[in-house]
Amino acid sequence: MVGGGLGSQIGVAHRVAACMDGLFEFSAGAVDIDPAKGHADGIDLGLPKDRTYGTWREMLHAEMQRSDRLDLVTVATPNATHFEIVRAFLDSGFNVLCEKPFTLDVAEAEELVRLAREKESVCGVNFGFSGYPMVRQAKAMANAGELGRVRVVVMEFAHGFHARSDDADNPRIRWRYDPKQAGQSAVLADAGIHALHMGGYIIGQSVAEVSADFASCVQGRLLEDDAALQIRFSDGTIGRLWTSAIAVGQMHGLTIRIFGEKGGLRWRQEEPNQIIWSPLGESSRTLERGASGLHPIAAGGSRIPIGHPEGMLEAFANIYSDLHAAVAAARAGERTGATEDFPGFSAGLEMVRVVQAATASSKNRGQWTPV
Amino acid sequence: MVGGGLGSQIGVAHRVAACMDGLFEFSAGAVDIDPAKGHADGIDLGLPKDRTYGTWREMLHAEMQRSDRLDLVTVATPNATHFEIVRAFLDSGFNVLCEKPFTLDVAEAEELVRLAREKESVCGVNFGFSGYPMVRQAKAMANAGELGRVRVVVMEFAHGFHARSDDADNPRIRWRYDPKQAGQSAVLADAGIHALHMGGYIIGQSVAEVSADFASCVQGRLLEDDAALQIRFSDGTIGRLWTSAIAVGQMHGLTIRIFGEKGGLRWRQEEPNQIIWSPLGESSRTLERGASGLHPIAAGGSRIPIGHPEGMLEAFANIYSDLHAAVAAARAGERTGATEDFPGFSAGLEMVRVVQAATASSKNRGQWTPV
Amino acid sequence: MVGGGLGSQIGVAHRVAACMDGLFEFSAGAVDIDPAKGHADGIDLGLPKDRTYGTWREMLHAEMQRSDRLDLVTVATPNATHFEIVRAFLDSGFNVLCEKPFTLDVAEAEELVRLAREKESVCGVNFGFSGYPMVRQAKAMANAGELGRVRVVVMEFAHGFHARSDDADNPRIRWRYDPKQAGQSAVLADAGIHALHMGGYIIGQSVAEVSADFASCVQGRLLEDDAALQIRFSDGTIGRLWTSAIAVGQMHGLTIRIFGEKGGLRWRQEEPNQIIWSPLGESSRTLERGASGLHPIAAGGSRIPIGHPEGMLEAFANIYSDLHAAVAAARAGERTGATEDFPGFSAGLEMVRVVQAATASSKNRGQWTPV
Amino acid sequence: MVGGGLGSQIGVAHRVAACMDGLFEFSAGAVDIDPAKGHADGIDLGLPKDRTYGTWREMLHAEMQRSDRLDLVTVATPNATHFEIVRAFLDSGFNVLCEKPFTLDVAEAEELVRLAREKESVCGVNFGFSGYPMVRQAKAMANAGELGRVRVVVMEFAHGFHARSDDADNPRIRWRYDPKQAGQSAVLADAGIHALHMGGYIIGQSVAEVSADFASCVQGRLLEDDAALQIRFSDGTIGRLWTSAIAVGQMHGLTIRIFGEKGGLRWRQEEPNQIIWSPLGESSRTLERGASGLHPIAAGGSRIPIGHPEGMLEAFANIYSDLHAAVAAARAGERTGATEDFPGFSAGLEMVRVVQAATASSKNRGQWTPV
Repeated sequence: MVGGGLGSQIGVAHRVAACMDGLFEFSAGAVDIDPAKGHADGIDLGLPKDRTYGTWREMLHAEMQRSDRLDLVTVATPNATHFEIVRAFLDSGFNVLCEKPFTLDVAEAEELVRLAREKESVCGVNFGFSGYPMVRQAKAMANAGELGRVRVVVMEFAHGFHARSDDADNPRIRWRYDPKQAGQSAVLADAGIHALHMGGYIIGQSVAEVSADFASCVQGRLLEDDAALQIRFSDGTIGRLWTSAIAVGQMHGLTIRIFGEKGGLRWRQEEPNQIIWSPLGESSRTLERGASGLHPIAAGGSRIPIGHPEGMLEAFANIYSDLHAAVAAARAGERTGATEDFPGFSAGLEMVRVVQAATASSKNRGQWTPV
Repeated sequence: MVGGGLGSQIGVAHRVAACMDGLFEFSAGAVDIDPAKGHADGIDLGLPKDRTYGTWREMLHAEMQRSDRLDLVTVATPNATHFEIVRAFLDSGFNVLCEKPFTLDVAEAEELVRLAREKESVCGVNFGFSGYPMVRQAKAMANAGELGRVRVVVMEFAHGFHARSDDADNPRIRWRYDPKQAGQSAVLADAGIHALHMGGYIIGQSVAEVSADFASCVQGRLLEDDAALQIRFSDGTIGRLWTSAIAVGQMHGLTIRIFGEKGGLRWRQEEPNQIIWSPLGESSRTLERGASGLHPIAAGGSRIPIGHPEGMLEAFANIYSDLHAAVAAARAGERTGATEDFPGFSAGLEMVRVVQAATASSKNRGQWTPV
Repeated sequence: MVGGGLGSQIGVAHRVAACMDGLFEFSAGAVDIDPAKGHADGIDLGLPKDRTYGTWREMLHAEMQRSDRLDLVTVATPNATHFEIVRAFLDSGFNVLCEKPFTLDVAEAEELVRLAREKESVCGVNFGFSGYPMVRQAKAMANAGELGRVRVVVMEFAHGFHARSDDADNPRIRWRYDPKQAGQSAVLADAGIHALHMGGYIIGQSVAEVSADFASCVQGRLLEDDAALQIRFSDGTIGRLWTSAIAVGQMHGLTIRIFGEKGGLRWRQEEPNQIIWSPLGESSRTLERGASGLHPIAAGGSRIPIGHPEGMLEAFANIYSDLHAAVAAARAGERTGATEDFPGFSAGLEMVRVVQAATASSKNRGQWTPV
Repeated sequence: MVGGGLGSQIGVAHRVAACMDGLFEFSAGAVDIDPAKGHADGIDLGLPKDRTYGTWREMLHAEMQRSDRLDLVTVATPNATHFEIVRAFLDSGFNVLCEKPFTLDVAEAEELVRLAREKESVCGVNFGFSGYPMVRQAKAMANAGELGRVRVVVMEFAHGFHARSDDADNPRIRWRYDPKQAGQSAVLADAGIHALHMGGYIIGQSVAEVSADFASCVQGRLLEDDAALQIRFSDGTIGRLWTSAIAVGQMHGLTIRIFGEKGGLRWRQEEPNQIIWSPLGESSRTLERGASGLHPIAAGGSRIPIGHPEGMLEAFANIYSDLHAAVAAARAGERTGATEDFPGFSAGLEMVRVVQAATASSKNRGQWTPV
């Protein structure tokens, strides 16, 4: 793992998720930008001394020479560093899981996609919420035609944790709204694209065109802390997205609603073990994780019986489980590709393109902009 | 009452709401377009024979000559007829409550507003959901500055009752999507403006500008059955609205979320007796209709004790109760006006303007359009 | 109406409910124990001067002599006075709706039941929550065998409005826990029997035997403010009841869950427009008031369309609507009886018996006691 | 680990939970009653060949002689075998986590408690739901006096997975209701004691006395599939428990409500990341896992940020984390004991006593029975 040392929220999640099913072990890392802290944290986190590195470059060189080199490198560093690190590991033949947002601009993302193809590496971007079993049930239902042609997808990821007027002065939050550090977008790139990715993942379409309305509600911010996107997906489905960081009181803001010719479906991260499924003309029903009759991909991603809740870490663990299968298949010489369940670099690239198009659209007062 | 005979959904609601508090009686009516059915329905509904009229013109002429003429005329006829009927009753000095949408175009609405001012009549448009006590609590909280400056208002009114692919052939639904009968907008004018009115009502601002994205999801429809609006209110607050008639499984789609500098607030028609209020930096709390500590306007609009649900009819009854107070004040020679709680003709006009601006914006690919 | 003047919570509910459908008018009353206040309140409430009475006896004598005597007398006085007032009106041939609890002891209740039969009057006890359309849907489902044999009914009615330690000194609450004024039971007789009645109403069984555990949680109380009952219904179904007045934070405490061989069903007053119905081996579904496919009695008790909430007043109005039909049938010389939808005096008697048996059981440390 | 091989639901949960925080590793096991399957499963589960045992006795003998002997032995075998296995490992000085129910009778449980004291071993019983951070927040609130004296605790654990009438013939379910295999109680010992343990855990009291009502709803069952218990805790708090296996449609049946002098509190496994806290006389508020201001024990048991759900496996992991701390403390020569957060053998013994007392009470028609 690169990044994700002590004090990092996402680092814990990666370590727990990767190891949950006993498929991966946390074996090596350069977990902090500060080499001394990185060493100390690595030891604290149980890494052997000789695989606790001060920098990712040191890690790359040392691991390349090991026969037991890492099966997968997780990159959980600040956004602006993803490109350089991922490229270097890819170049040396490693498989990589990169945190989102993938890169800061489209050109970088395209280069990584190209490189990943060339190297035939297993590459993922951590749109980890797509690992929830009931999100996968939704995808399987859509794919099986159970919803009919999908008309509208309503997506939202809204929280209120950047809502204080004096947050503009808080260094832990300020950088997120500073274009120099965060790129061209704040809340869309940080939160909104999770919901948008999930919408496209479920219906099996990519984003074709967007019209965006960005707002900076807290004075002094240069990037948006609230945004709405209107979307046309590749097969004509309409998308509506709202994302916010100033929505005080919203905790569990990740919600997806899909409306098709044959029925409507709702999933919320607040109740991730259920889908509300409303067949046209019938009463709504609650589909439960662990129940009989689910699609195999939803049944397979469950660890504990119906009625007991699984959470976000189990969803992330499903992504790692998919990656493990892909790594094993690649090693066995099998081609992997379009049928993979986990979000790959192309998903990362698509979302970077969406962010760029939405930013442009918002600057052009909502003009529809191709992705 | 004009319109609202047997078989009309909204007619029942008006009669029950108007009479609930014993302030009005249902005394006269021309309740159907078919004079014979109108007579028969009126008798069935308990009207005296001599005040059961075949047409609204007949009703107008007869009532004008009575000393006990109607205190208030409710107009619940098809949308296209509102203008002519309301104008005639206004002209003769009656007070009027008109169903929404107020009129089919802005010019008509402006004329009615002008006429109402000239006549100093008591005039309302039935944005009846604004009668819910907890909606009024929200308005009072916003007005008292408890939310701080309001940043974003997220509104939605989405149902799935026009989602069948063969609804395009169903005469009971088809007319709603036919510009000749329904005007320039379907789901926005029918459902969405309720949510939009409520948003502006709570924060005390009018709509300044809109960018709209309309979609006709069911083949063969000429008007929109799904729409998203981005909004700028008069004091700069941002609005986000989604409205739909194809959202299968959505029942109770009327939801308002308000996010201010000092906290966030949510109200849903599904649980109309509660507000979720999230003060910045504190845990969310549930405010209950009937609890102590509410603002007087919320306390005053309650009939039964805390813990037992009131519903839509009680909300409408609060509108009628406001109208009764205004009629009494007018009769006593008091000026009424800006401080009224119920939505007046100016609210009706504003929403007609919004529909026109949104329709234009959507045709211009989302161009921001002043209201 | 006897009792229920200004300041009475239940009086408003009766007046609104009785008049909601235009079937009854509020025509006469002795609405307060204080004749002067009763007169004044009656006038305020819109009664004609000559039918605003100072005492119920005065009202009885005057109304007996009128040709337009009252169709139905609602008795909403303090519990201890129900017996005398109801008996007197019955004796003179009036139809009566009595508030619950019906009487303070079994002997009184039995005499009223006997008298009601003899007089062939239309007589109800206001277990008004049984008027909710979806409660009636539940009854119709049970009756049609859709639940199979019912195994267990779990009932609860718990609130927290008598939870203050100093409530023992509050005169407005103290009397409820004083055996001289309230009889042998407090929270069971006041709240719990609503839930218990509803359980039996839905499954069509009466209570055969109870084992009770009463507790007085607030110091200084002589009667119970929290109680649990174990129940055997007449056909062997098991009942579990919890009722409380010290359950701080519980608002909408009236909940009924029914578990049969073919499925489970839940209704909560907090969401009175829905039933959650869980057919054995299938996913749970949400049945909505106003949807197609409901039983006629549920469909008939609805006033407004699906998706908009009805509340408690509409439920009570259904009871009045039933009573109106029974009065009309009686007047037309038709026998009414066991098939009536509204709770009659026999239901009132049954609940008085339950209260007596439960009180005895609790004193005997939970001994099973026949009802 | 003894038991919990492939196909075992609880085995997976133990392995994931034990290893989640990197504190324990799954190092040795005899995971099936069938030695061959146990060997195969152990290998499949990643055990080294030399620590994959055919029987628990074999495992005991081999591990005793290793310098790297197991830090903790998890016993997840059928209930009737717990006593013998736990005793043997204790006798040889191992620390033990035993699945619930602890033993089949009180004498066995008492012997294990005695032996654990004598050996000064770290011993737990897996009432794993007490590991949820917000359950621990509830305990800390009660302990800090924030609820005042606790008056009533209402507990429930009800599901519907044994509700089929033909389940009596299903061998996978039948044994649970067969006294020879399951002991004296079915649903109480299997499910109900989880809720009951949690109630006592939160309020810091033990069960003093019970009155029980057992029912066998599915024909042919000898043990109860639905039960209600009335409880007196050691300091006089009243308890109400309902547990069921025939409650069709109930999924997430584990719910605890606590009512004290100063407020009420609710936790449900369905929404395990929240507590609803209702201070007396104020509006209810939602406390969120991960929010600031929680008690340290709740804050400490969290892995991911506020707003993202944790589930049952994370709760179990907290139990393992507590056990790890206790093992480390014991090894360092520190006395551990009453201040431990995890449920120990004494909790296991208490629940066995409750089951025995409740069974006796139910047979004696609800007679109050000391525990």
